[in-house]
Amino acid sequence: MPAILEEISTFRDDYSEGAHPAILAALLESNRTQERPYGADEHSNAARRLICARLGCSPSEAAIHFVPSGTAANRLCIAACLRPFEAVITLDAGHIVAKEAGAIENTGHKTILVPPERHTGKLVPAGIEKAVAQHSFHPHSPRPRLVYLSNASENGTVYSRSELHALSATCRRLNLLLMIDGARLGVALRSPAAQGLTLRDLFQLTDLFWIGGTKCGALLGEAIVVRNRVIADDFILHLKQHGALLAKGRVLGVQFEELFKDPTPSSSSSSSSSEDCLYFRLADHANEMARRIGSLFESRGYALAAPVQSNLLFVAVPRSLADRLGERFGVYVWEEREEDVVVRLVTSWATEKLQVDKLAAWLESIECVVD
Amino acid sequence: MPAILEEISTFRDDYSEGAHPAILAALLESNRTQERPYGADEHSNAARRLICARLGCSPSEAAIHFVPSGTAANRLCIAACLRPFEAVITLDAGHIVAKEAGAIENTGHKTILVPPERHTGKLVPAGIEKAVAQHSFHPHSPRPRLVYLSNASENGTVYSRSELHALSATCRRLNLLLMIDGARLGVALRSPAAQGLTLRDLFQLTDLFWIGGTKCGALLGEAIVVRNRVIADDFILHLKQHGALLAKGRVLGVQFEELFKDPTPSSSSSSSSSEDCLYFRLADHANEMARRIGSLFESRGYALAAPVQSNLLFVAVPRSLADRLGERFGVYVWEEREEDVVVRLVTSWATEKLQVDKLAAWLESIECVVD
Amino acid sequence: MPAILEEISTFRDDYSEGAHPAILAALLESNRTQERPYGADEHSNAARRLICARLGCSPSEAAIHFVPSGTAANRLCIAACLRPFEAVITLDAGHIVAKEAGAIENTGHKTILVPPERHTGKLVPAGIEKAVAQHSFHPHSPRPRLVYLSNASENGTVYSRSELHALSATCRRLNLLLMIDGARLGVALRSPAAQGLTLRDLFQLTDLFWIGGTKCGALLGEAIVVRNRVIADDFILHLKQHGALLAKGRVLGVQFEELFKDPTPSSSSSSSSSEDCLYFRLADHANEMARRIGSLFESRGYALAAPVQSNLLFVAVPRSLADRLGERFGVYVWEEREEDVVVRLVTSWATEKLQVDKLAAWLESIECVVD
Amino acid sequence: MPAILEEISTFRDDYSEGAHPAILAALLESNRTQERPYGADEHSNAARRLICARLGCSPSEAAIHFVPSGTAANRLCIAACLRPFEAVITLDAGHIVAKEAGAIENTGHKTILVPPERHTGKLVPAGIEKAVAQHSFHPHSPRPRLVYLSNASENGTVYSRSELHALSATCRRLNLLLMIDGARLGVALRSPAAQGLTLRDLFQLTDLFWIGGTKCGALLGEAIVVRNRVIADDFILHLKQHGALLAKGRVLGVQFEELFKDPTPSSSSSSSSSEDCLYFRLADHANEMARRIGSLFESRGYALAAPVQSNLLFVAVPRSLADRLGERFGVYVWEEREEDVVVRLVTSWATEKLQVDKLAAWLESIECVVD
Repeated sequence: MPAILEEISTFRDDYSEGAHPAILAALLESNRTQERPYGADEHSNAARRLICARLGCSPSEAAIHFVPSGTAANRLCIAACLRPFEAVITLDAGHIVAKEAGAIENTGHKTILVPPERHTGKLVPAGIEKAVAQHSFHPHSPRPRLVYLSNASENGTVYSRSELHALSATCRRLNLLLMIDGARLGVALRSPAAQGLTLRDLFQLTDLFWIGGTKCGALLGEAIVVRNRVIADDFILHLKQHGALLAKGRVLGVQFEELFKDPTPSSSSSSSSSEDCLYFRLADHANEMARRIGSLFESRGYALAAPVQSNLLFVAVPRSLADRLGERFGVYVWEEREEDVVVRLVTSWATEKLQVDKLAAWLESIECVVD
Repeated sequence: MPAILEEISTFRDDYSEGAHPAILAALLESNRTQERPYGADEHSNAARRLICARLGCSPSEAAIHFVPSGTAANRLCIAACLRPFEAVITLDAGHIVAKEAGAIENTGHKTILVPPERHTGKLVPAGIEKAVAQHSFHPHSPRPRLVYLSNASENGTVYSRSELHALSATCRRLNLLLMIDGARLGVALRSPAAQGLTLRDLFQLTDLFWIGGTKCGALLGEAIVVRNRVIADDFILHLKQHGALLAKGRVLGVQFEELFKDPTPSSSSSSSSSEDCLYFRLADHANEMARRIGSLFESRGYALAAPVQSNLLFVAVPRSLADRLGERFGVYVWEEREEDVVVRLVTSWATEKLQVDKLAAWLESIECVVD
Repeated sequence: MPAILEEISTFRDDYSEGAHPAILAALLESNRTQERPYGADEHSNAARRLICARLGCSPSEAAIHFVPSGTAANRLCIAACLRPFEAVITLDAGHIVAKEAGAIENTGHKTILVPPERHTGKLVPAGIEKAVAQHSFHPHSPRPRLVYLSNASENGTVYSRSELHALSATCRRLNLLLMIDGARLGVALRSPAAQGLTLRDLFQLTDLFWIGGTKCGALLGEAIVVRNRVIADDFILHLKQHGALLAKGRVLGVQFEELFKDPTPSSSSSSSSSEDCLYFRLADHANEMARRIGSLFESRGYALAAPVQSNLLFVAVPRSLADRLGERFGVYVWEEREEDVVVRLVTSWATEKLQVDKLAAWLESIECVVD
Repeated sequence: MPAILEEISTFRDDYSEGAHPAILAALLESNRTQERPYGADEHSNAARRLICARLGCSPSEAAIHFVPSGTAANRLCIAACLRPFEAVITLDAGHIVAKEAGAIENTGHKTILVPPERHTGKLVPAGIEKAVAQHSFHPHSPRPRLVYLSNASENGTVYSRSELHALSATCRRLNLLLMIDGARLGVALRSPAAQGLTLRDLFQLTDLFWIGGTKCGALLGEAIVVRNRVIADDFILHLKQHGALLAKGRVLGVQFEELFKDPTPSSSSSSSSSEDCLYFRLADHANEMARRIGSLFESRGYALAAPVQSNLLFVAVPRSLADRLGERFGVYVWEEREEDVVVRLVTSWATEKLQVDKLAAWLESIECVVD
């Protein structure tokens, strides 16, 4: 479905490309009007209505704000939730822990680290319970108050509907808020492993979460959804204070409007996927490309370090192959192990089948050479 | 020069429109490649080279970073300059004082307020000297360490070359850093009142400053220029920490590349203005439209509350006229005075001559009615 | 009443002396037991009960915490009251503005400055109203949420009962919290100008305030009183986080217990003052010494720059006399004026009548010389 | 050596008692003078000279400041060392991690957690190296810049001279600053396990460290020693900003003067220990009491969970005995294990031999009962 991109050659990440062409077309089309600034424009409002329809709520029940980056979303969401001595519980490999240059601590709050469930790399209720128990030394312990997780997780696994129900129930029982980083929410929700988890579920089960645009077809932008009334109150002031409220908020509104609007009849062909909005069609494509690559490696006898549940793949290969994969396809070495290394491959809305075919052919050729 | 925009009807501000069409064209054209993320892309690098050429320095002499908003630029620049107990001196009407939701204080730093020079609303050396003198009660006073000013100023006046030389000399004498908020730097530098002040001058006279894109034709984005080596060191980590480092940094790089690239021969017609880059051509247009509106009001006997030096106009009108101007042209009431009110009108790259003519005709008609 | 101190020779401030001897005696007496740490000791609890009796509330109605310094009290009280984008309104000459090294901003919050009522240097309702009006530009203005004042004020004037009622009513009408810095609360409440204002009034009229010990006989320590239930919740965690929760909390508890316990019969002589607790007896003494010094200067023809309402005096004298006063009695020059200078003299619990007599004699002698 | 305290009955911690009587005597003796405020008093200066003599430096080579609490010392030292995106490396069981209510993060900085060396619970160079390696993902990782450790450690073990040399060398090689939390520095330096480590060594090997008074005989107070010139510059402003600069700084200065002054001839009896200053004599006593208790438990067949190297003991006992020890001697259960529990016992300058004898007798009696 994506237009042919001339120079897509890597599987390095899902943000090396520009925007899906429909996004740019929408920006062009909407460019010739004056709009209210700071997120009060017609496109942002339309995007809010479209997202609310998916959440199953009226616009007054959800505060929806658009921000330019995932780090901005995470830092201001967390700052909005916590009193000064309150802390956020997260997986020790969580994105906010060591990949955002200390953004969370810069807002004054501690991250309390929890080890993941083995094999899946996911957060489980027992981890939360233990973290709370270990921080009950009053008045010395920072107070756990918020649980952060990302879906998909850092290793590409996704949370199922029942897993998220259990986590949400644990949080409510322990008087904890729950927030989800949805940088890759599209691929997570469209994964078979999600077992039907929907935006509506997320809205019911969390206090706030965000829907990633940057990694799902947009030029930039993430949509924060706040259900908790206390946190939603004056939320826009957090955006402004953190430098995340764009004067031309339309830039973000137009993109999310395009991503979530109903598909036009002309675009709705026979395939079931095309019946959904652009956001999920792009996610489906990325997932499908990842599954193909996963099968490709598995069929050639390489082990996957984690099940392929979204657009991230982790494959164990010999060091020599990893080096060549890096040179040819830009993939990262994720983990050095004793006998082999794990490389990460990432697909996106822009990954072309042709590129996957090239990987297949290359793998075949390189093995001849290596052998 | 700007394309005809269908629905430009207000003089409310300079960020109600989308981007200049050339910007969108450049985004479209560059969309079909993969680029390095986080500001290491070819377009950002090209924009850096173009800006350095204007600064009269080599790329290694200036750290140039692109961020999505002016508030982000201000908060991270200030945070990058100061130790915890150090403070920033600013005009009491400075943009960072009461229009950024406490962003500066949120980074832990105090704003020390200085009254402006009467009539011009500008910062003068005496103000800085007095602020330093008033904060010498050791170890109780927060330590003044940075001077912030915006050019153009909040009331549209601009700093001349000699004024900026004097401010810079004062700062260096008092061991203060100097930073300039250039949200409207284009119109400021192209103002006759600037007396030839250039980007090269700014680079020599300050420790860091930023070049506004949002209010000068871009969809979004500001370019931070850091000359001070100590501050430049690892500056990108400040961006990341504040949520201002875009994964698809190309989005900002492409725009500044387009704004600062040399004009193509075909576009360079006879007018002198067209010989410069898009950034300054757009600024010239906004300034020209503002001058026309200024003359329009003056010729009809209305007093300008400040000289028209950039794209902001402040006109004293009767309350009844202010109301009608608000309804028809979206202008803000800026100040309530005893006999009249001051309204603010703003032009931009997108303001059309036709729209100014409409204002002229409307003014004539409305006066007949009012009279 | 205070014991003769050997080397009391200045009127520089009210914290150059040690503690009142009764305080040290109480520390000695209580030293030989083990106590619960972190403010849960018997002496802190006794002090809480004594203070609650003065507030007219039960111990469960007020959260009372003891901290080592006034800056600690101010910074953690303000941090406890505000969400990240909320700001504190204060007089532009307020103690937190330029005398605490940016402590408030270090907690992330802006101080919104209000000019004082002329002559008195006090905060008035109109100032609060104007500050709120000037910060209503949503979502750009930081949000005023708390009003801070100190009683006595920085220039030694004090708030009357009716003034504080009016300020409190204004705050409640405008949805603002009210906090009082009581570094010199003793002398303020015992001033005739207070018109009967009591601790009980303060408790009713504010959300939180603190009772200064450092400047009223203690070695160190201030007692924070929080009435607002939301703010009181987990308040101790703010103390711990700011480094203001002493392991040996008894050190502060013992002192406030001594300051607020009922006078023993033996010490209650005929004077009405001696019927009150040590805290107020010491305040009465400081006020009395200040009044004597005020009369002394007035009788010699010097003008007081502000009425003497507490233990701070501001006297206008010739420059030559100011210099000699500084040399002999350690007083500060507070303000340089065209024809003269204003010097500040401060009395305390430790100021001896003999010392005031010495000042009188010295003034007489010096005038002979000067004349 | 300590005076008989009437109600010393627990081994709960080393801050349940008041001050050593000599400290109170010094406060009494020095009370009757006026002193310069804010740490510029004669006693603070005398204490600085005494400490400098131990550091082997002139007063101009070390910035020495006195603060009221260990949490204050830690938070302001760390804030003084780091730029906003810089982080502090610490053991995962480090005191600053989960026992200071998020104080470090409240200053904006991340704590990077390192597991301890097995058995000793101490930080080792390999841990530091690994933490640095894991935070090299530029520009996403927070930047490790400071290493924090406490000596004695949280489990009572102490660093030897050679261990600290190795840690210091590692820090310097990796461009890391080194700081030591010396809440229990006295007992650590006087431990045989320290292998002769001295204050002079600490001064040479670190950038800054602090000497704990609260847990070694003082009423309150810790002495921060800063050797690094860049950090030392204006260090007092950090104290002021954090609320840790006492107006009556003499309160802290007097105590450290008393703790570190040379022993008077009359007090220097035959014992070698009495030849040293009060600070180390008190530490010796606490260590000696701990060793006795350790032998007591060992001789009765209980296992020590960690070697007794300072004033903290961790003993594995049956659950039933732990409960009774808690009731009778106020000790904490430190760790629940499958077959038994680990209890913590703490001695201090105030622990009396008589009390240890009571413990011995009680243990004997209780075993009869239990058996």
